[in-house]
Amino acid sequence: MSKSIYATPEEAEAAFYRAFESTDLEAMMHVWYRDEAIVCIHPGGPRLEGPEEVRSGWKAVFDSGQRLRFSLRDQIRTRDALLSIHLVKEYVHVSGVLRGVVLATNVYQQVGGGWYMILHHASPEPVSEVERLESEAVH
Amino acid sequence: MSKSIYATPEEAEAAFYRAFESTDLEAMMHVWYRDEAIVCIHPGGPRLEGPEEVRSGWKAVFDSGQRLRFSLRDQIRTRDALLSIHLVKEYVHVSGVLRGVVLATNVYQQVGGGWYMILHHASPEPVSEVERLESEAVH
Repeated sequence: MSKSIYATPEEAEAAFYRAFESTDLEAMMHVWYRDEAIVCIHPGGPRLEGPEEVRSGWKAVFDSGQRLRFSLRDQIRTRDALLSIHLVKEYVHVSGVLRGVVLATNVYQQVGGGWYMILHHASPEPVSEVERLESEAVH
Repeated sequence: MSKSIYATPEEAEAAFYRAFESTDLEAMMHVWYRDEAIVCIHPGGPRLEGPEEVRSGWKAVFDSGQRLRFSLRDQIRTRDALLSIHLVKEYVHVSGVLRGVVLATNVYQQVGGGWYMILHHASPEPVSEVERLESEAVH
């Protein structure tokens, strides 16, 4: 588990996906701000609120045992003094095969010199779009 | 169509849902910032980017002819100088009947003294949760 403070929202985001890929629950929760107002919405899932629910959600994801690999594309970032909003398309691979694309809104907040995640809102890219991308990759 | 400038993110949000309920495309687009970086993700939909795609998306929603009514619950707001992030649960009614709950992340940006929407990311609350709510409403 990393005890580092993330000096930029980009560092916090890199740590988030590193924890996600390595299914490291402690590292994942280290990225999140410890506040009742944090929110995590997994694709198709309910709104998990606060550190306890967010942690339980990630535990369930990690307990499924799937080792996911992410490549991030089409990033759009909007930053203010204390907030940074990152829109990303997560290309999710399992064993080297593209399994889907997830649209994510990630929000980071600066607190006491470090940046922490306060929101992860994810939803699946429609299947038709994924099929088109796979088709393009093949041809 | 209103030509007013929204002095607060709350006013912009009220205008957004008013335009949504009245299926008024011009009023809807008046709420959005005219910038290529704006993003709109309808429930289950792709990431629409820029004023042209965002407008086409709303036109398709409004052309379906459904008149929706929203009540907003469980609002969580995080504000910085130039950005305001609003998480809401949209209780969506058609003809007085609850048709579903949508989890929305709405982001507003201050530009030249007015607040404009720059992101609407919506995803459906899982059906099981909606059924539980309907059950609670009946009993």
